[in-house]
Amino acid sequence: MALSGDARMGLIYDGDDIQMTSRARVIFTMSGETDTGLAFGASFRGDQIDGANGNTNMNAGTVFISGDFGKLSFGDVGSAARSAVGDLHGVGLTGLGFANEYPYLDRLQGDLAEEFDAGLGYTTAAMYEYSIDGLSVFASVGQFGVVRDTFGELDSFGDGFITDTKVTSNAAAIGARYDFGDFGVSAGYEMARFKGTFTETEFFSGDEVDSVSGSETLKADHLIIGVDATFEGINVKAIYGRAGKDLGDALKADPDASRDQYGISMSARFDEVGVSAFAHRDFFKTTNLGVGASYDLGGGARIVGGVRHEKPKGSSSNTTADFGLAFSF
Amino acid sequence: MALSGDARMGLIYDGDDIQMTSRARVIFTMSGETDTGLAFGASFRGDQIDGANGNTNMNAGTVFISGDFGKLSFGDVGSAARSAVGDLHGVGLTGLGFANEYPYLDRLQGDLAEEFDAGLGYTTAAMYEYSIDGLSVFASVGQFGVVRDTFGELDSFGDGFITDTKVTSNAAAIGARYDFGDFGVSAGYEMARFKGTFTETEFFSGDEVDSVSGSETLKADHLIIGVDATFEGINVKAIYGRAGKDLGDALKADPDASRDQYGISMSARFDEVGVSAFAHRDFFKTTNLGVGASYDLGGGARIVGGVRHEKPKGSSSNTTADFGLAFSF
Amino acid sequence: MALSGDARMGLIYDGDDIQMTSRARVIFTMSGETDTGLAFGASFRGDQIDGANGNTNMNAGTVFISGDFGKLSFGDVGSAARSAVGDLHGVGLTGLGFANEYPYLDRLQGDLAEEFDAGLGYTTAAMYEYSIDGLSVFASVGQFGVVRDTFGELDSFGDGFITDTKVTSNAAAIGARYDFGDFGVSAGYEMARFKGTFTETEFFSGDEVDSVSGSETLKADHLIIGVDATFEGINVKAIYGRAGKDLGDALKADPDASRDQYGISMSARFDEVGVSAFAHRDFFKTTNLGVGASYDLGGGARIVGGVRHEKPKGSSSNTTADFGLAFSF
Repeated sequence: MALSGDARMGLIYDGDDIQMTSRARVIFTMSGETDTGLAFGASFRGDQIDGANGNTNMNAGTVFISGDFGKLSFGDVGSAARSAVGDLHGVGLTGLGFANEYPYLDRLQGDLAEEFDAGLGYTTAAMYEYSIDGLSVFASVGQFGVVRDTFGELDSFGDGFITDTKVTSNAAAIGARYDFGDFGVSAGYEMARFKGTFTETEFFSGDEVDSVSGSETLKADHLIIGVDATFEGINVKAIYGRAGKDLGDALKADPDASRDQYGISMSARFDEVGVSAFAHRDFFKTTNLGVGASYDLGGGARIVGGVRHEKPKGSSSNTTADFGLAFSF
Repeated sequence: MALSGDARMGLIYDGDDIQMTSRARVIFTMSGETDTGLAFGASFRGDQIDGANGNTNMNAGTVFISGDFGKLSFGDVGSAARSAVGDLHGVGLTGLGFANEYPYLDRLQGDLAEEFDAGLGYTTAAMYEYSIDGLSVFASVGQFGVVRDTFGELDSFGDGFITDTKVTSNAAAIGARYDFGDFGVSAGYEMARFKGTFTETEFFSGDEVDSVSGSETLKADHLIIGVDATFEGINVKAIYGRAGKDLGDALKADPDASRDQYGISMSARFDEVGVSAFAHRDFFKTTNLGVGASYDLGGGARIVGGVRHEKPKGSSSNTTADFGLAFSF
Repeated sequence: MALSGDARMGLIYDGDDIQMTSRARVIFTMSGETDTGLAFGASFRGDQIDGANGNTNMNAGTVFISGDFGKLSFGDVGSAARSAVGDLHGVGLTGLGFANEYPYLDRLQGDLAEEFDAGLGYTTAAMYEYSIDGLSVFASVGQFGVVRDTFGELDSFGDGFITDTKVTSNAAAIGARYDFGDFGVSAGYEMARFKGTFTETEFFSGDEVDSVSGSETLKADHLIIGVDATFEGINVKAIYGRAGKDLGDALKADPDASRDQYGISMSARFDEVGVSAFAHRDFFKTTNLGVGASYDLGGGARIVGGVRHEKPKGSSSNTTADFGLAFSF
């Protein structure tokens, strides 16, 4: 059982106003080893203490066991595609909305999410990882979402309709990453499916006289690839993603959206000074640019600042910024 | 101040569907000693951190002081009857609904609970324990529940009715356990009482002209006895409980219920292998059977699985099961 | 990263009924040091774990950095006036409602708070402190509260009104304390301001034809001074506060209120025995008297009890009391 933590204090500008921003958090990390040498453990943040107590909805923290066979994790693990390919380099004290993070299927927000948030991400899921030499492979599956419901009733003569419904949601992903020297390539594929089925049964005088069934399915997938390279202390990364199936069709049909997202970023460190930058264009044709810098004060303290410029398609742009001190304990 | 924790990851079958289940928790344990050698301390789980901060409703965690005089605990202590007699042996990774746990008065759920959940259990209570040789005695009292209310008003002529009401709920329990060699016997008695009183006062031109009072009382009790024995590494336990007073009468009058509950269970350990089983018939004539097994991997890790079969009176049975890894840190 | 905690168990009398009261809490304290010797850290209670994760509303816990320049803290810091002058000595196991605490502007509750709770206190704020010899100075500023809103719309002819509103709330305070030998004097000044502005623009056929602006401002301030002295192990303290600006005018105009509050208190320790007492008359002419005593059992355990007598202006008085064990870990 180990305790660690982080904290920060600074200012944030939201495009209109400046406000103070600060926080302090603790992280619990538990670990053990079986008699045969398998490692196991769990970890969660203090503010996620309730979500980590999740059972069939562990939406924070993770639990794992690992050995020669690889590593198996349950909980808030994200998708295998995300684990393999990851995100662009971030900027700022607060992350400035984390526009450097990619909308993987397990993170889809907004209108499309209502159709496609198949639960890979922020509910219980399982992830398997295996690494050998420069190759890492990942496979994940979201919670097996099932909702069953029955409605309708018979009248006093035994006449009427009874309808059984079942809605299932499934998500799965695979990913891989290969490192050779200072170069790395990665790829991931994630898919999600919603399926609703119903069976309506008609009764007359208590006897079943007819039955009608039907179902509807909605699918989404997301193929994503990345490349990255490190030279002279500078790390550069590019990521391209393409949505498919019903999600791809919906994006394609929307004149304000696209099936594709792409971006590039860099991070470098020169003694105490760190700099990072990213550019990302998402499915909804919003472009985000970010630049950030930090200065290491030693002992776990850094001065950090960043600027983010957001340009949504068809509306005016907005610039946000932050600056302050970040601590790790 | 000591930290410990537990975590688990596995699968659960609810009778219809299989889902992943996992969680991670931390436990805070604080202890101290006075100059004269009295021990004191407190303990609560991380996900109960708010309930443990309870004041007059400390519904999680406990605080204690102990010495030659015995041990006095406040908080989420349960009833003395439950402390003395306890529950049947449990099964499974998740407890599978904890059907091995007895419906003591401090745990009553459902329809009857609305009349009888007198607050022994999941609100602040106090427990006193004393042990000498093989004998342990327990006495507990629930929070002194009081709700006072006044309603009604006088009109502009000073005419009208004012009604004062007071609802009190009290619960108390005693228990004892005696161990002789490999055998143990235990018994507990718990009681709960709700009392509502009212005084309606009539006013005319601002003067009190009449006053009517009344009260209604509802009582419940529960006598419970247990025997257990250990031989050749096998622990066997049987528990019988009988509800009385208004609760017993209500159960007796209900054709689908009974004043009696009873059950039997066993648990055994052979090197790394553990097995357990229980059978319980509750007040509502629901029968639960459970079997479970575990394999100790060492270092605090176990493989655990269980099956529970539930047969409610007058409706169809259901079987649930779970399987996975349980960790303690 | 250090853990500490506290717990208590006892009885409380609310003027009508006696109830059991208990609780257990944990405190997280994180600290570090930069390469150049600046100290930094953060602290919060376990039950405040969510509030400490606050960003622009860190309403629990604090984060700080300190060095030769002084100490700068963000988070739930209270006002500089409160830090300099403080509160009267408290009584009892539970604080008995903390009537010894002064209604600083960052704590104003009730009717006036709706106009004047300018956010110094229980939202993110910043505090600067500097001490040299016997002198300590404090300066604080509350979160820069800003709410912007736009409403109204144009009809299909491009006619209509659009109104932009902006409500800002600001709070700031200064304070100082000087100690000479066994005497100390302290003073603080805190102020809060709400300002609402609007601009209503009229459109005709899509063109701006007229524009009207306006604003309204509401101000409050609070001057508070304190003196304290220690002799023969007895600490005595007196505090006087006077509200001004719109808040002072509103209090002055209210026959049941006053612009002034004042109080006196003492605390003494003789070996294991501690006693304390306070008397306070607040802005609403409510008088509170409190007396308390404690006995130190060693090892962090104390027996503590207290009585509080409250006499609101124009209504009947109420006496509350508590008694029990307090533990620190």
